[in-house]
This record gives sequence, structure tokens and C-alpha cells, in this order.
Amino acid sequence: MDEIGGRHRAKNAQGEERMARRSSAQGVAAGEEPRAEALARIAALVGAPHALTDPTLMAPFLADERGLYTGRAAMVVRPATTAEVAGVVRICAEAGIAIVPQGGNTSLVGGSVPHEHGREIVLSLSRLNRIRAVDAANDSLVAEAGVTLAEVQAAAAEADRLFPLSMASEGSCQVGGVLSTNAGGTAVLRYGNARELTLGIEVVLADGRVLDLLSGLRKDNTGYDTKQLFIGAEGTLGIITAAVLKLFPRPREVETALVALPRLGAVTELLARLRRASGDAVSAFELIPRIALDFVLRHVPGTSDPLAGAHPWYVLVELSSPRPGTGLREALEQALSGAVEDGLVADATLASSEAQRAGLWRLRDAIPEAQKREGGSIKHDVAVPVARVPEFIETASRAVTAEMAGIRVVAFGHAGDGNIHFNLSQPEGMDRDAYLARWFDFNRIVHDIVAGMGGSVSAEHGIGRLKRGEFARYADAAEIELMRRIKAAFDPKGILNPGKLLPPE
Amino acid sequence: MDEIGGRHRAKNAQGEERMARRSSAQGVAAGEEPRAEALARIAALVGAPHALTDPTLMAPFLADERGLYTGRAAMVVRPATTAEVAGVVRICAEAGIAIVPQGGNTSLVGGSVPHEHGREIVLSLSRLNRIRAVDAANDSLVAEAGVTLAEVQAAAAEADRLFPLSMASEGSCQVGGVLSTNAGGTAVLRYGNARELTLGIEVVLADGRVLDLLSGLRKDNTGYDTKQLFIGAEGTLGIITAAVLKLFPRPREVETALVALPRLGAVTELLARLRRASGDAVSAFELIPRIALDFVLRHVPGTSDPLAGAHPWYVLVELSSPRPGTGLREALEQALSGAVEDGLVADATLASSEAQRAGLWRLRDAIPEAQKREGGSIKHDVAVPVARVPEFIETASRAVTAEMAGIRVVAFGHAGDGNIHFNLSQPEGMDRDAYLARWFDFNRIVHDIVAGMGGSVSAEHGIGRLKRGEFARYADAAEIELMRRIKAAFDPKGILNPGKLLPPE
Repeated sequence: MDEIGGRHRAKNAQGEERMARRSSAQGVAAGEEPRAEALARIAALVGAPHALTDPTLMAPFLADERGLYTGRAAMVVRPATTAEVAGVVRICAEAGIAIVPQGGNTSLVGGSVPHEHGREIVLSLSRLNRIRAVDAANDSLVAEAGVTLAEVQAAAAEADRLFPLSMASEGSCQVGGVLSTNAGGTAVLRYGNARELTLGIEVVLADGRVLDLLSGLRKDNTGYDTKQLFIGAEGTLGIITAAVLKLFPRPREVETALVALPRLGAVTELLARLRRASGDAVSAFELIPRIALDFVLRHVPGTSDPLAGAHPWYVLVELSSPRPGTGLREALEQALSGAVEDGLVADATLASSEAQRAGLWRLRDAIPEAQKREGGSIKHDVAVPVARVPEFIETASRAVTAEMAGIRVVAFGHAGDGNIHFNLSQPEGMDRDAYLARWFDFNRIVHDIVAGMGGSVSAEHGIGRLKRGEFARYADAAEIELMRRIKAAFDPKGILNPGKLLPPE
Repeated sequence: MDEIGGRHRAKNAQGEERMARRSSAQGVAAGEEPRAEALARIAALVGAPHALTDPTLMAPFLADERGLYTGRAAMVVRPATTAEVAGVVRICAEAGIAIVPQGGNTSLVGGSVPHEHGREIVLSLSRLNRIRAVDAANDSLVAEAGVTLAEVQAAAAEADRLFPLSMASEGSCQVGGVLSTNAGGTAVLRYGNARELTLGIEVVLADGRVLDLLSGLRKDNTGYDTKQLFIGAEGTLGIITAAVLKLFPRPREVETALVALPRLGAVTELLARLRRASGDAVSAFELIPRIALDFVLRHVPGTSDPLAGAHPWYVLVELSSPRPGTGLREALEQALSGAVEDGLVADATLASSEAQRAGLWRLRDAIPEAQKREGGSIKHDVAVPVARVPEFIETASRAVTAEMAGIRVVAFGHAGDGNIHFNLSQPEGMDRDAYLARWFDFNRIVHDIVAGMGGSVSAEHGIGRLKRGEFARYADAAEIELMRRIKAAFDPKGILNPGKLLPPE
């Protein structure tokens, strides 16, 4: 969850905007009168109170989470049912009105807000907020697009099950957005991301037809698995209105440890040993560099270093088992002892209470907040093959330090998934704006290294509007062409979230 | 793994053939001279010994596993590298020659053999047979399309890892076919099917370009996940030439039990309890009806009933953990005792040795073989939501019995996945051919019930050539249309495995 300096990003937003306006203009060309009539029909369909045109009421739907973009819209439409969504899309398809689907509006890449030209409508899924069914025997539930992630978790818990997907925005992000962005979060290592947690979807196609893929089957080999395309498509291929989500047994045994490493290179072998020792029960494996811990200890009240002495790297490890009494703690202790003997681990502490566990997680979770206090930060949300995490961090650290003396590398995050938040705090004493002006220079340096290692320049946040340029730079031309063909096949009129995800043509 | 009476299926094959010929004729129209020249270029590219035209040498590539179809081909081409595959496809794209990709040729639905008109070429991937890399730290390996499943398992074991996908044909089926059919097997309940086990692929597109999606990343949210389309596409969208496959820790503790149920309805609750009690360690949950056990005891030498007394239903349960000494046996015993007390379980026996374990599995694995001895069998490979397995079996059993007195329902298989082999043995004493002549009548009865429950008429075998009609009958029209658009977008000339998977137009 990285944060980006608003002013600086606004500059980029303008660049992206020029491209978006062009592609949007291609996609949509409708006379004013049919448009006005279509908007009136939409308002009649969903009911006037749910067809917002008042600027004050529309405002929360027009600006993104990070304050990078503030768009305009012809209308914010809030249908209550799949049938209403389908009706709105049908009208828009006929009238050539572009639609920006929106869930909790928590996109970190500007994926869920309209462009500045104001000809799009925002289609908010928030009123599709029912849990339609909980099927404990099938370990699944059916949630509508507007149900928040926290509500899904609660419904699962009520059925004595776990829905493992979890992230900072879970109180406001919604199922439709979670699936449309293939969200990651903190439990990917063990349970996979949103795609792996989805058994089926219901989706409104670009012509307003409803595709019901909600069977919830565990096995079905009849034809292409079309649902996979809508997952992660950021609303550009269809509008997800409901989903069948997988449930799991709840964890009954959880062990948490902060482990100090003598050197970064030990991280890969430690992960392998813990997975082996715990029977693949590693549910979190978060890398923390000393500098991040220093930032947290300096800026976040109530935190303290649980280990004596400073170490260059730490890992926050969590093991969990849905069965109690399987000796997870002993397995963890034994694995760590062996790792100490073999020089892979310098020191470690295991939480002995829920309070201690929360304290260890606080050290990890407070990093972004603490980093803000250290001035400007240039962010990267990248992934490399798990085994290459140390190599990536070392190579990229050398490269950015060569570019700017005194730059402070804060590389942390989901090392168990190969997903590193490679964030760069400004040199002490440097002017913040002058530093942030180098944003794209550092992006280029870091992303070139990531690409050279077969990595991803967007591990969990998607492309949206912000990363279309980076996507274009690093993607395979043949793959982009296939994606364009898919887009044309699914949304021939280009009315679904234009100017998002696909690179500018 | 059901078997189908050859003569009867041949009739169906002819029906499918008429449709296939029509669609194939649409896809491919090339003059004889350019064709001959193109075939010569292909032979030059791969080397004459690998461009077979001799009927005797071609024969094994032209007939399918079940003996349903015997096709003809202009050539059987055996390239050795991805570059050679790409070269062959490029030539075929230019000349309009249709290609039937083939791995181990173990398709149960005629998906991997050419049509009878003889204008297609078979492209065998068998010579792409290298394990390119094993990356234990990333828990993955890269295998080429022609590597057999057994070879993948062996390479994983050598790295002290498990590749869990396992099925009867594993000695001959190959990675390319396994992925192209999204194969299931016996470990789906715990590890998922081929799709869930794939991190990346390399694929040759219909125009001969190579798409390299082999990064092996655990997280990557840059654009549509195109690899998902090629998985399960049965070679109709591209030709998979290599894959990054997920590895897992090896099981160190395995407990196996044969559990007798007093009634079918108990099966769902038993599964839920075992999953809860074992911490989701249930790795097999196979339903066996008494009649299947009777068939096995009657026809398979060396088998015996491990339980006293006859029970209407049994489940073969296996729990496994990659960590030894976690008390899985105690958990299983305790869960079963509780289930006996609550009337969910009538009796049970736990294997105490590897020999006993093999003996219990033999009772399950021998069912198809034993059933053959009881005369004609009409087969269904269907899936319903896990919770509805009992309802499906009861409803369908009533319906087929009402249609034919004395018919013997043998419903067995992967109940934990909702995947039942609903096989129907002929009434005792009835003429076999007269019985098998009713094949499609019973398909209709059973599949209508499956469809009414939101189920699948092909849970794990795919569509191929055999099930196109059934697919067309039960699929959503909008979804079929999307699939046709995808096909047109990926393979505009229709040269990749025409007349397979998609329903006849």
C-alpha cells in the first residue's frame, strides 16, 4: 500500500490524460440529444434518487483514493440489482455512453474514477450489497459486487469459515473491485489472490446481457474459462455483479515470530525451511529492512525493538493451521534453532500472547506511515521470482544509490510472494519537491531491473490509468495485441472503462 | 476414467463428423499445389525423419485412446523445439493448413486426433521433452510440452518436492495436453486441477509468434491474464510448448480409511467434519457404492471386504500432511468416532501399513475394470456443487430406474469435488447392444438433471470432438458467443484444432 506525493503524480496524470482523452474520443461519439435522452432513461430505470447529477453528491465518486485524479461525469448511477445494471449498460451501449464501473473506489492506480472530459458515467455497484447465499458444505458463498471485503469475511466467520483475502482497505473495498483488480493482500502466500479465491462470477456484458457463471462448481471443463478474463480486467471487459467465493476452515493455531537475518541472502533459504518444517503452513512472510524498523521506532509511539542489537534484515513470519495442537510452535522453534546454528538467522522472538503478536504486526504495518515522516518517497510495487528477491533488492539498491548519493532504500513487504515495495526515501536534508521531480527517472532504473529479471512492474495494484505507460514499455507486443483483440471482442464499442488498463495505442 | 462401448460411440462419432467436416471446410481452403509445397517446407524445417507420411508410422497418431475415432492426416510433424513449432505453425498459417496438436494422445473425448478427411496435419509435441529448470526456492519447475506427467512428478521428487497432479494416464499423458485439457485427477480436492498448478506458459500463437509467459511470478497484475485462456482450450487458441508448474512440500504423514455410511445423505457432513478436524488435510474423498464394491469383490482377484457387514455407501478417505507427527491419525480416529456416535458413519477401518493402504485404494481403482465384467455401461462424467452430490445421485438414480427397470446405478468417484462418475450397468441378462443403443437417451435424462442443478456435463474430460453436442445443448448462449469471439480473435483463420471444443455452428 504505497502512497504517492499528490503534486508530483498530478503531472503524470496530465500526461496520461492526454492519451485517455484521445482514446475515449475514439470510443464514444454520440450526439447531445440522444445522450440526454439516454441519461433520462437511465434515471427513470434506477430511480431519480440513484441517478446523481448534483456536483456535491457526485464529488466522492469522481476523485480517487490517492488524490491523483479528479474527474467529471455526466451522471453517477447507483443501480440496486443485476437487472438494473444490465438495463443501464444496454442504454449506454445504444447511446455510446462510456461507463466507469466503481466499487469502494479504493484503486491505487486511478482505475475507478472517470476522466476529466465529463462524458462518462460512473456506475457504482455499492447498492448490490447482498450476500445471496452461504453454502458451508460447498465451502463457498455468493456475494454481490457491492459487498465490502469485511462483510464477506464476517459472513464467512458466521459460518465458522475463513475468507482469507485481507488488506488495509477491507472496510471499504468491494467484491466487484476486489475481483476486477485480482487483489492481493496479506494472505496470498498461503491462499492465493482474488483469482484463486473465486469459483464463479455473474457479469454484465458490454451489450447489457448477463452472463451467469455462478454455478460454484469445483470442476467444470466445458469450454474456455471465460470468467478468468473478467477477473483482473479492471472493468474493461464486463461488469462483475456477483461472485462465488471460496471459504476455508478457520485457523485454530497461529504462531508469529520476528526473525533477524545476518544478511539478505538468507531470506530465500529461510522461507524454504519454514515451509518444509511447518508443512506449508507459512501464512505470512514479510521482509523488513533495519531502516524501516528505525523509521517505525522513531515515529510511531508505543513501538519498541523486541530484539537486542541491530540487524540488517528482519522477516515477520506467521504460521497458521486450521487444526489446533499440531505442534506448530515447536516446529517453528526447531526450524529457527537450526537456522541459527547454520548462520541463516541471527536472532528471533516468538509472540507468546495476542498482544505480542499484534505488537510484531504493528512494526510491519506502520512502515508506510513512518516512512512518510522521513520526507518524499518514490514508490515501486514490483514482483520478481521468489528466489530472486535478494538479487533484485541488491542490484536495484546499488543502481539507485549510484544515481543519487544518500538516497535511502526501504525495500519491504511480501517477500514470500516475490512482491517487494521498493520504496525510496529522499536523502536527509534534500528538498522534497526536487527529490520527487526525479520520480520517473527512478521508476525507469528500478523497472528496467525488474523487467530484466522477468518481473512485474505492478504486482498487486493493477494498471488503471496510472501505469499504462509503464505497462506499454515492458509488456510483450504480442501479448498486448492479444489483449487488444480480447477487448475488441468483448467490448466492440469501447464503452467499458475506456482509457484504463490497456496501453495507449 | 470411464470406458465407452466402441461400436456405439462410433455412431456418435459419425454424427459429430458431419459437423466437423462442415466447420473444417469453412476454416481451411487451400489449393493442392501450395499445400504440397508447404508440407515440403515443413518437412525440411523439422527434418524428414520427423515429418511422417507413411501410413504405418502415422497410425498411432491417428486413432484415439478409446477407439472412437480413426482419422487421417496429410502429415505427422514432430518438431523438437519451440522455434520449430513456431516455424511449422507459420507455414500452416500461410498455406491454410489445419493443425491438430497432440501430446500423449490420451484424450477421452477425441480431442487429439485428426478428422477423417485427411487434410489436417498432426503436430506432436513429444520431442519437446526437456525439463528446462527446477527452481526449488520458487517451488516451481519449467517443463516442455512433451514431458510426461510422470517425468514431472519425478523431477519434483528429485528436488524433494511434490507435483500433486496424478492420474491413471500419467505415464503417457504430457504437460501440453494436461494443461490444454485442464486435467483433474485424484488430488484436485487438495491441490486444484491443472489450472491452479500452473504459474506460466509458453505458447505458439496461430500466426506462429511465440508468447513467453514463463516468468513464474506469484503475483503479476499487468493486464488480462491471457494464459488462463490457453489452459483448457484443447489446442484451439494456441499451442502450449512449455509451462511453469507449481511444486509443493512432499507429504510426510498419510492416513487412509475406508468409511461405511448408513445413508448417502451423510456424505456431505462427513466431508465437512473431516476437513475441519484435519485442518483441511483431506487429500482424497472418493465415494464408492456397495454395488461397486460387490463388483470388485466378485471380479478382481485378491480383493476382500475389509469391513464386516454390508453398507449402502462407502468413502475412501485420505488425509495427508507435509509435516510428520501432527497427529493426523488421532484426528481422523476422533472425527470418525464422533461421526459414528452421531449416526453419520456405520463403520470404518484405517490402514495400518502401506500394504493395507494399497489394498483400500485397490477397491476404488478397480471399479471401472470390475464394472466392465458386468456387461454394457453407459457413462457420465458430471459435476454438481459438492453439497448437492447426494441429491443428484438420488434424483438421477430414480429417473434412470423409472426409464429402465433393473438398470444398475454405479455412482462413484470424486465426491469431494462434486465430480461423480454416474455410470449405469445394464440390467442382468439384457442384450448388451440393445442396452447400449439407449446411450443417448440416458445421457439426456442424466444431463438434464445435472444442468437443472447448475452442474457440468464434463467435469474433467473436456469437450474434444465427442461432447460438442452436449456442450451446445447445455451452455449459455451468451457464453458460447463469447467463446466464438475469443476463437476468432486468437485464431482468425481457424487452423488450430478445428471441429474441437466449440459446438457446431
